[in-house]
Amino acid sequence: MQELLDGSSPSDWRALDPANTLYMELAGGRVVIELAPAFAPAHVANIRTLAHEHYWDGLSIYRSQDNFVVQFGDPTEDEKARKPIGNAKAQLPAEFTRESEGLAFDRLPDSDGWAPEIGFSGGFPVARDPKSGQAWLAHCYGTLGAGRDVAADSSNGTELYVVDGQSPRQLDRNITVVGRVVQGMELLSVTPRGPQPMGFYDEPGLRTPIRSIALAADLPEAERTPLQLLRTDTPVFAQVVESRRNRKDAWYKVPAGHIDLCNVPLPVRAPPPAQPAE
Amino acid sequence: MQELLDGSSPSDWRALDPANTLYMELAGGRVVIELAPAFAPAHVANIRTLAHEHYWDGLSIYRSQDNFVVQFGDPTEDEKARKPIGNAKAQLPAEFTRESEGLAFDRLPDSDGWAPEIGFSGGFPVARDPKSGQAWLAHCYGTLGAGRDVAADSSNGTELYVVDGQSPRQLDRNITVVGRVVQGMELLSVTPRGPQPMGFYDEPGLRTPIRSIALAADLPEAERTPLQLLRTDTPVFAQVVESRRNRKDAWYKVPAGHIDLCNVPLPVRAPPPAQPAE
Repeated sequence: MQELLDGSSPSDWRALDPANTLYMELAGGRVVIELAPAFAPAHVANIRTLAHEHYWDGLSIYRSQDNFVVQFGDPTEDEKARKPIGNAKAQLPAEFTRESEGLAFDRLPDSDGWAPEIGFSGGFPVARDPKSGQAWLAHCYGTLGAGRDVAADSSNGTELYVVDGQSPRQLDRNITVVGRVVQGMELLSVTPRGPQPMGFYDEPGLRTPIRSIALAADLPEAERTPLQLLRTDTPVFAQVVESRRNRKDAWYKVPAGHIDLCNVPLPVRAPPPAQPAE
Repeated sequence: MQELLDGSSPSDWRALDPANTLYMELAGGRVVIELAPAFAPAHVANIRTLAHEHYWDGLSIYRSQDNFVVQFGDPTEDEKARKPIGNAKAQLPAEFTRESEGLAFDRLPDSDGWAPEIGFSGGFPVARDPKSGQAWLAHCYGTLGAGRDVAADSSNGTELYVVDGQSPRQLDRNITVVGRVVQGMELLSVTPRGPQPMGFYDEPGLRTPIRSIALAADLPEAERTPLQLLRTDTPVFAQVVESRRNRKDAWYKVPAGHIDLCNVPLPVRAPPPAQPAE
C-alpha cells in the first residue's frame, strides 16, 4: 500500500476543512474528527456551535463498552442539572438517511449483507439503496454518531459515541451519524471498559476527562493539525482497495478476493513539505 | 436476548473442557480462552505442552496494533536467545483449514462476502466451502491465532495473537487459528497501542507482563473459572441470532434483516446454582 501512496500525486489528496474538523484533547493527545455535513447538516451545525462555545471542555468519556463504543458528553440524568447548551438547539430532526440523488458515490463492487450498495462519498464509508433512493453513513471503526433515547429525534449532538469494535452495522439507519475519527483512534480505543452490559461507569472517578473539543477553524493556524486524506474518487484509491482485496505479498497464501466496507483503509498523511523552486 | 437466555434449559449450555481451556493471568485479571483442537490439533497440543511447562509465565504482550491485534510470547529476535520451548515441538504443520466432512456445522442463512458458507461449529465462528470441501475458523473479535513468518509452516504456537478490532477476515485460510477468548476481552483490548504501522513497542518497558498462562486442567478445581457457553446447535441460539438480526425493541426503528458472522453474540454464563431437591 505504501508504494501506491508514494506514487500518488498531490491532487489525489484533500485537506481537512477546518470548519468541519474537531479536535478532541485528551491527556494522551489529540483526536482529529471529520464532520459530515452532507449527511447530518442539522447535527453538524449544532456540534459546531457546541464546540465553538466549549460545551465539552471539562466533560468526560463516561461510557466504554467493550467491542462497541466509547461515549462522551454530560452523563447527568436529571435534565435540569445538565450543562447548559448555550446557543445550540435542544431539538433536532433525526438524520438517519438522506436522498442519494446529488451525492457522489464511489461504489465498491464487493457484496454486503447490510445494504444493496456500498462505497464511499467524500471519504466516508456509505451505503445506498436504489429502491428507496436513500443513502447513509455506515457504522465502521471510528464512526462518530449522536446518541439518542427511544425517540428517533431525541439526539441533539451533545452525547456522542465513537465505534471502537466490530462494525455495528445494525445501527445504520437507526441513529444519526455525524462524522468519523481520522486520527487518534488509538487514544480512544484503550479507554478502560465500564461494567457490562452497557459500559457506563458506576464511579465518576473512572471517567476519562476531556480537556476540550474545539473546531479547528476556531484555533489559530499554528495550533491546527494539518492532515491530508486520500480522495476516494481517485484511481490510486481504487488500487489501494484492490491491493487489500487481493494481497499479493509473500506472506499471504490465499487472497481473499473480497473486502468489507469497514476493512477498507482510508489513508491519512501529514502534508508533504513544499518542493523548493529549482 | 436476556429473556431468551432466561428461558433456556440446562442442556442448551455446555461447560468448558478444562483440557482445552487456558487462563491468561494479567495484572487486571484473568482472560479465559477456549482452544479448538478440532481445527488445529497439532498447534493445540503444542500450546497445551507450552502452558503445562509455564512457557509464557513472565513473558509479555509485546505488540498492540490499533484496530487489529494484540500479540504475546517471546519478542526476542535472535533465535539462540529465545526462551527454550521444553517438550514442545519446534516445527508444526500449517493448519489453516480442515476437511469439512465430519464437522458439525450450524449454518447461518446470512450472506457473507468472504466465504460461500458461514456458521458455527462447537461454538466457534466457522466458514465452509462446499467446492473445496474445506472449513476454517473465521477471524472475529476475540479470535486467537498463531503468529507466523512468511513460510506457511513457521508457527509453533509460542507467538499468539488475539483480534481486538474490525474482523480481519482476510487472514482466514492464511494462518492457523487455535481458539477464542470467551471471557476477559476487556482486559486485552485496552492494551496501550504500540507505534504504527505494526504496533510492536520500541521500549520493552511498555510491554504488558503476563503473570502466567495455565491450562485449566493443571489447576485445582477451586482455582478454575466455571463457565458455561450456549450451544450453537440449539433452537435458543437460533432465536438469539434472529433477535439480533431483526431487533424488535422500541429503540430500533429499522431492523437490519441481516447479521454478520462476527456480530453474532456467543453467550457465556457462570453455572447457575444447583436446584435444591424438593
